[in-house]
Amino acid sequence: MTGGARVHKNLTPHAGRLSADRRREKLGQRGAVVWFTGLSGSGKSTVAREVEALLVEDGRNAAVLDGDNVRLGLNKDAALLSAAGYGEAAAGRFGLGFSAEDRTENIRRVGEVAKLFADNNVIALTAFISPFRADRDLVRALMPKGAFFEVHVAAPLAVCEARDPKGLYKKARAGAVGEFTGIASPYEPPRAPELVLHSDRETPAESAQRVVALLKRKGVL
Amino acid sequence: MTGGARVHKNLTPHAGRLSADRRREKLGQRGAVVWFTGLSGSGKSTVAREVEALLVEDGRNAAVLDGDNVRLGLNKDAALLSAAGYGEAAAGRFGLGFSAEDRTENIRRVGEVAKLFADNNVIALTAFISPFRADRDLVRALMPKGAFFEVHVAAPLAVCEARDPKGLYKKARAGAVGEFTGIASPYEPPRAPELVLHSDRETPAESAQRVVALLKRKGVL
Repeated sequence: MTGGARVHKNLTPHAGRLSADRRREKLGQRGAVVWFTGLSGSGKSTVAREVEALLVEDGRNAAVLDGDNVRLGLNKDAALLSAAGYGEAAAGRFGLGFSAEDRTENIRRVGEVAKLFADNNVIALTAFISPFRADRDLVRALMPKGAFFEVHVAAPLAVCEARDPKGLYKKARAGAVGEFTGIASPYEPPRAPELVLHSDRETPAESAQRVVALLKRKGVL
Repeated sequence: MTGGARVHKNLTPHAGRLSADRRREKLGQRGAVVWFTGLSGSGKSTVAREVEALLVEDGRNAAVLDGDNVRLGLNKDAALLSAAGYGEAAAGRFGLGFSAEDRTENIRRVGEVAKLFADNNVIALTAFISPFRADRDLVRALMPKGAFFEVHVAAPLAVCEARDPKGLYKKARAGAVGEFTGIASPYEPPRAPELVLHSDRETPAESAQRVVALLKRKGVL
């Protein structure tokens, strides 16, 4: 409910009528962010969806944020914004591609949305390549201590490329996709992730169980 | 889990392992968006927080999105992005102020986030002036039929200005705040809102009860 330029000086986060403790008590659930990072094809979305299913079957609310629902919505590219009625200038300004700057903004927005979910007692499961360490660390810094879990989905490049579920590695090798992570753009692995999933040696179901075990061990569940 | 330019052609929204029906059954709750719109000082956030409290006390998850948590997070302005480490160009590009273009993008992003909450069985309660009809209609169009409730918080300008909870009207009259809705920028009231709250003649608690009654009548609760 704001209305003027530079009004952020007047903003303070709402305490709300409802305390965080009361929310947690009534909903029977803490919020958290589980941040899956890894190469394209490593299995991030697949594992995130498995974890979602386990949690929801257990009556907990969990929400997957991934390229498929975010790049088509909140983080549309310029072409999709144009199709939604934006003029050329606004579409170019706000639309997100895959340059380093655009990826940083992509991850920043996802981090802020994941935080909103976690603040509202939902377990956010994010599945983005998120290749840059600094971007992931910014998201970690947004979150309260103990509510951010970085999970490295660590299949080797050769395995991911052999899987190539969307044919993107093939296109990247042919030079048809610019700045593709692992081929023409770096992937910076986490230095101290809360969990490493060897998705070349364990099934998505096994990986998901390990994530749930982590959340139990850390008191989220 | 995407990796190349214009990759949206390869994207399809994930069906997921978990069906929407199963999610709803296990969580015992439908998602929806309740979109509060009205002048600064009309009481949007206050009513939204009252509704949140009523719903959470009833064991339903509801999440308030408002200027206070969104303008300080997802929709930071250029100054806040700079403070977060963005370079000048990126901060200027992605930071949101209060021009018409920026407001449209503000509302678009909020709409997409509200949709993500609703898709995940949370009742999103958004409290933004959202002065432009076209912007609100774009959000409505994102949502499945029957899951979007536009609520006009319709206190007259004179009442809002007399309340002036943040001193912004005073600043706007003094010319210290540009493009302030109701003073130097238009407010376009909804033509067919699902509900009108006369927040000059009813208490926030009464307004909140009317919103809950609407959600019951429409089968959300």
